[in-house]
Amino acid sequence: RVRALAGDLHEADVGDLLDALAPDLRTPLVELLGDDFDFTALTEVDETVRVQIIEELPTATVVEGLRDMESDDAVYLLEDLDEADKAEILAGLPFPDRIALQRSLDYPEETAGRRMQTDFIAVPPFWTVGQTIDYLRDHDDLPEEFYEIFVIDPGFRLLGSVPLNRLLRARRTTRIDGVMAETRHLVRATDDQEEVARQFERYNLVSAAVTDDADRLVGVITVDDIVDVIQAEAEEDIRAMAGVGDEEISDSVVYTVKTRSVWLLVNLATAFLASSVIGLFEASIEKLVALAVLMPIVASMGGNAGTQTMTVAVRALATRELDANNAGRLALREIAVGLVNGVGFAILVGGIAGLWFRDPTLGMVFGAAMIVNMLAAAAAGIAIPLTLDRFDVDPAVASGVFVTTVTDCVGFLAFLGLATWILVS
Amino acid sequence: RVRALAGDLHEADVGDLLDALAPDLRTPLVELLGDDFDFTALTEVDETVRVQIIEELPTATVVEGLRDMESDDAVYLLEDLDEADKAEILAGLPFPDRIALQRSLDYPEETAGRRMQTDFIAVPPFWTVGQTIDYLRDHDDLPEEFYEIFVIDPGFRLLGSVPLNRLLRARRTTRIDGVMAETRHLVRATDDQEEVARQFERYNLVSAAVTDDADRLVGVITVDDIVDVIQAEAEEDIRAMAGVGDEEISDSVVYTVKTRSVWLLVNLATAFLASSVIGLFEASIEKLVALAVLMPIVASMGGNAGTQTMTVAVRALATRELDANNAGRLALREIAVGLVNGVGFAILVGGIAGLWFRDPTLGMVFGAAMIVNMLAAAAAGIAIPLTLDRFDVDPAVASGVFVTTVTDCVGFLAFLGLATWILVS
Ligand SMILES: [Mg+2]
Ligand SMILES: [Mg+2]
Ligand SMILES: [Mg+2]
Ligand SMILES: [Mg+2]
Ligand SMILES: [Mg+2]
Ligand SMILES: [Mg+2]
Ligand SMILES: [Mg+2]
Ligand SMILES: [Mg+2]
Ligand SMILES: [Mg+2]
Ligand SMILES: [Mg+2]
Ligand SMILES: [Mg+2]
Ligand SMILES: [Mg+2]
Ligand SMILES: [Mg+2]
Repeated sequence: RVRALAGDLHEADVGDLLDALAPDLRTPLVELLGDDFDFTALTEVDETVRVQIIEELPTATVVEGLRDMESDDAVYLLEDLDEADKAEILAGLPFPDRIALQRSLDYPEETAGRRMQTDFIAVPPFWTVGQTIDYLRDHDDLPEEFYEIFVIDPGFRLLGSVPLNRLLRARRTTRIDGVMAETRHLVRATDDQEEVARQFERYNLVSAAVTDDADRLVGVITVDDIVDVIQAEAEEDIRAMAGVGDEEISDSVVYTVKTRSVWLLVNLATAFLASSVIGLFEASIEKLVALAVLMPIVASMGGNAGTQTMTVAVRALATRELDANNAGRLALREIAVGLVNGVGFAILVGGIAGLWFRDPTLGMVFGAAMIVNMLAAAAAGIAIPLTLDRFDVDPAVASGVFVTTVTDCVGFLAFLGLATWILVS
Repeated sequence: RVRALAGDLHEADVGDLLDALAPDLRTPLVELLGDDFDFTALTEVDETVRVQIIEELPTATVVEGLRDMESDDAVYLLEDLDEADKAEILAGLPFPDRIALQRSLDYPEETAGRRMQTDFIAVPPFWTVGQTIDYLRDHDDLPEEFYEIFVIDPGFRLLGSVPLNRLLRARRTTRIDGVMAETRHLVRATDDQEEVARQFERYNLVSAAVTDDADRLVGVITVDDIVDVIQAEAEEDIRAMAGVGDEEISDSVVYTVKTRSVWLLVNLATAFLASSVIGLFEASIEKLVALAVLMPIVASMGGNAGTQTMTVAVRALATRELDANNAGRLALREIAVGLVNGVGFAILVGGIAGLWFRDPTLGMVFGAAMIVNMLAAAAAGIAIPLTLDRFDVDPAVASGVFVTTVTDCVGFLAFLGLATWILVS
């Protein structure tokens, strides 16, 4: 009964079922399903769950499961295993399958070579449309899904491709090179998957040929896998900005503590730096305790404004909208926005603080510090991501700490410094 | 020469060119290109640029340009215009085109109905594969790209679809309903585009039929437009978390100030709330100024830890990984992580502060406040997004302010309160 039920489900639904099951029931379910279990479902589960199930299953079962999969999905299952398990499973596969998977695995992580499928349809340019269609009708070892036919020369070099709808619209007697389109958007096996995703997005691609350094066709990347890349990369950036690593909600407390505490430790160091700035003005605070009450507001407003600017800059860098050509223009806009917001909020908070502590001079000092910090926020928010990007550090990961360190320190320094100068001494 | 150059470019490249040009040169370039300008390029430019060019061009030129476009792209150009311009352009279009666009525009923004293309290929179930292929060969008013053929009954109700690769592999004499797949992933025209994107992602779709409330086939959504939706939705969430609206880097200072200052104003209110907590303890700070130096550290660590938990919860809600079933489990994990990190950092910061101010009791109070605030951060980080989601408020937009308000207030209250109780009085 379970077999009948699960056999009807889409692999994504089976994957969700496995994610939701208690850990000790997952592998038994896979074994119970036997041949009805499509290993592709394992591409849809969390990484921890995937590794657990593959390690628990007998190697022979995994090998059998991998043989029925598309090569890119098989690579996806293998890449997270440790070297010994990977080698053992590969050794069990027939030679041609093993070679195909090994070739993908030899490319670095997060490259087109890792994401490509090595089964594709390629025909010579002198075939006719009719011949090609007959070939498709007579072979049933073709990939499960395909969206274009590639055209290659005898050396396996890519000449062009024919989208299926063009093939269907052409007369049977037309030569393939008469309907093929030249490949304008070439993907190299060594290209970063993020770069490939940008090409798919920009040129509205559904599949793309992947070539090696000698221009030979080695695989095809399809848009469904690119959709996953886009999701993963956006997710990565959101998490990076919040200081959360690659954890999943099924991860253990220990793992989560480990990844998050690194970021908290960095933040602790910068917090102590900011508090040492306050330490310089202990004497002033002792004399005028209102300074202690108001100073977090200056820092907090600067931190928020800086994060706004930084987010715009980080995203514009990620989508390649921001480069050396328009960096100057964006910096000017941000400084202008910082100035306008700074002056506006200075009047507002200065007024409130002046009334609250019945001290107009304190209000003015507070407002002035606000303007200084909003300008510092704009400058840091744009300069820090650009600088990190220039030095090839991912701006999404590191910009946040630096920006808030600047706005905390400048905020405390400007407010307490001005107050010491004008109000206290 | 410009015409020859631009004519060879992909529409995405022409779009980039328009984005980069000075505003007063954009419309002249479009006019110079004349018939060589593909209006689809306007789907690739920033919204401000798009609206500007369409408003500046003569209505007749826009009408002519829209007639050559896919309907979904035409809708994309029209939807941001004001009602008068939209009506004027629609009035200039031939009746069938006008009806098709109007039908899409009648669906609410960000629905499948807005994103669908109304040109598609649909055949009756009793046709043969051969008949269908001949039909495709003999008609040249077909959509530019298509990935499947739909099968409908006489009432235009959807029966199923045939992916092109299945059509190519089938014998010419086979009936269409013999090769068609039943539609398992149905998209309603009124579905939210985000929901549709999740289906594409989950079930690896390349195109999907869109039906109306009476189950009639009304359009097709293709993956290239879904890729844009996924990007836009991820972008929206990243920006929401940082308090930046839908601004683009080409927007003016005035517009940017307007959208960002709203968020800063909300933040100002919460900052004053936190500082009023400090105000309660002015007397203690006056007696022990070290409290003012250390209190921002407690708040900052809590804010960071809370943001980490919140980001995980917000993303898990967005991807539907988190729901009522596993909310309890995640909450427990987060509390455990908060406790472990809290105790660890309490020992660290307590030690440092004890040595810095040569006051072990101060160090212990500082550490205890850290534990309290880390627990508050975990609780707020998980409870606030879940509560907002329950009340149908987008957790990405609003969680951040609430979480940091909690961690600021609890941090100051715990530290200054404990210090007043144990150290000062
Ligand atoms: Mg999953
Ligand atoms: Mg696109
Ligand atoms: Mg694939
Ligand atoms: Mg896949
Ligand atoms: Mg990456
Ligand atoms: Mg990235
Ligand atoms: Mg653009
Ligand atoms: Mg729009
Ligand atoms: Mg998928
Ligand atoms: Mg489209
Ligand atoms: Mg499009
Ligand atoms: Mg939305
Ligand atoms: Mg959303």
